[in-house]
Amino acid sequence: MALNKLVVLVGGVGGAKLAYGLSRVLAPEQLTVIVNVADDFWHYGLRICPDLDTIMYTLADWVDPVNGWGIHGDTTEMLTTLRAYGEVAWFRLGDRDLATHLLRTELLRQGERLTTITGRLARAIGIQCTILPVTDQPVSTILETVEYGRLEFQEYFVKHRWQPEVRQISYQGANTAQLSDEVHHALRQADAIVFGPSNPWLSIEPILSVGNLREHLSQLPIPRIAMTPIIEGQAVKGPAAKIMRELGYEVSARAVAEFYGTTINGFIRDQRDTAFTFSLSEGRVSALDTLMHTNEDKIRVAQQVLALLEGGDG
Amino acid sequence: MALNKLVVLVGGVGGAKLAYGLSRVLAPEQLTVIVNVADDFWHYGLRICPDLDTIMYTLADWVDPVNGWGIHGDTTEMLTTLRAYGEVAWFRLGDRDLATHLLRTELLRQGERLTTITGRLARAIGIQCTILPVTDQPVSTILETVEYGRLEFQEYFVKHRWQPEVRQISYQGANTAQLSDEVHHALRQADAIVFGPSNPWLSIEPILSVGNLREHLSQLPIPRIAMTPIIEGQAVKGPAAKIMRELGYEVSARAVAEFYGTTINGFIRDQRDTAFTFSLSEGRVSALDTLMHTNEDKIRVAQQVLALLEGGDG
Repeated sequence: MALNKLVVLVGGVGGAKLAYGLSRVLAPEQLTVIVNVADDFWHYGLRICPDLDTIMYTLADWVDPVNGWGIHGDTTEMLTTLRAYGEVAWFRLGDRDLATHLLRTELLRQGERLTTITGRLARAIGIQCTILPVTDQPVSTILETVEYGRLEFQEYFVKHRWQPEVRQISYQGANTAQLSDEVHHALRQADAIVFGPSNPWLSIEPILSVGNLREHLSQLPIPRIAMTPIIEGQAVKGPAAKIMRELGYEVSARAVAEFYGTTINGFIRDQRDTAFTFSLSEGRVSALDTLMHTNEDKIRVAQQVLALLEGGDG
Repeated sequence: MALNKLVVLVGGVGGAKLAYGLSRVLAPEQLTVIVNVADDFWHYGLRICPDLDTIMYTLADWVDPVNGWGIHGDTTEMLTTLRAYGEVAWFRLGDRDLATHLLRTELLRQGERLTTITGRLARAIGIQCTILPVTDQPVSTILETVEYGRLEFQEYFVKHRWQPEVRQISYQGANTAQLSDEVHHALRQADAIVFGPSNPWLSIEPILSVGNLREHLSQLPIPRIAMTPIIEGQAVKGPAAKIMRELGYEVSARAVAEFYGTTINGFIRDQRDTAFTFSLSEGRVSALDTLMHTNEDKIRVAQQVLALLEGGDG
């Protein structure tokens, strides 16, 4: 098939790497990145959207290459001063980063939609492809933990450094949130959908939970392939493996593919992952070197994913 | 008289210098600084209180010694990034300074009063005397200008660098704003009141306009002395002389004393100002070297003001 329009679903760092590669390979009008918003939260009166920020900073070449999030060379004068006032200030707010939060929050207070704001910020810093929050309504990932009970995402992830044991995960607000018109439009136009190698429970599922997107995708007659975030029983980054274990899943690419079920009709496992060869009931499992350390890696993976989509029959 | 409790009314930089000197000479419980809030404004969703900040930073020894406002050594990474997003960003928001605005705004949104918040911030950074906004309600200095019509204070002062010609000044909200209980208490306890060498129209009058403070002060049987912001027909700093001219006043210490009228019963002119010797209908005019460049100057002036109050009969 000739691929014209691609939609990619992403969370933060892992998904951003894929999006970066794709943005360097596709023409801007060919790529729409749909981003998780269930990590978003209010902090010191600012609306902070960590995944949108990571995607934006990555695509604008602003991102800190070591962390994979935040702005390269950013300082923390504000945070240091907040601590001088006796604040705990557990969430890292870089000084440059603050400009994004302040501007976004101001525009939200003026009644603009997160979708419009994201487009405006992205264009202002030179991003040409389309970045869309999956919804303009608030959705919040809530983790039920053994140690602390119910935690909001950033408390779990940043404050407690994803150490609490997770019993259950829910996406507050997802039932009533609507896909934006822009997301509907992108899905109608899409020739293929790629699920980034993001955390299935913390990044992809909160996207799929909005507006029956999961069911909607299952019925789209186009390639819908997911990339594994698990290689040889380990997460490439972050708590994916830990959470799988705690929720009772086998820590494997196969378990991720099974979790996505009929929402996908193709899966990309890592070529290192020889122990867990498996097949999908529908579609094909492919193997790639999915690790993306350098920008060259990201572009190579993007090219290989596109080649699979264009050459494949599943 | 033995002076036990002193109240000083101040705006920004000039008043802060006097407050600094007094804070180094008096015991903390002896000094209450009542601060203008009519310069306060909302900017990028932050409640910014320039005069309270200048007083706080000065008393905490945080202030930039060159500007007399802002935090020493502060950076502007946030502001530079805001400009990268295409924003004009005409108001200087230092990165460290942002911590003050964020924390204050967050506490205001939680329903705390500006008075309580100011006390909390000041104590957190080691300030022991009492700093009080004159009111917890919003008051806004509005300038009717020849070039731009009606301007809010910061537009006039920062955006247009106080260059527009002023026809009229009003203090929006002052009629309905109430003095806080803390201000009432401080005034009841006060043995003397000093009007700082701040701009009479932009700093002191918006204080006096709240809750009939002007009339209230006129009836207090204690020394109420004002320090001149005008020396030899020139403002020590800022637009005081320019505004006096535009509003039709003679640019002189005498005109300032007359403007305060019966609200004061004592006046301190600068000793350089020999051309404009004058007397008050009630009380005494004294002469001092009122210029405060160094911290030693501030302490000397504070000591001399206290000596006048303690030694004087008017």
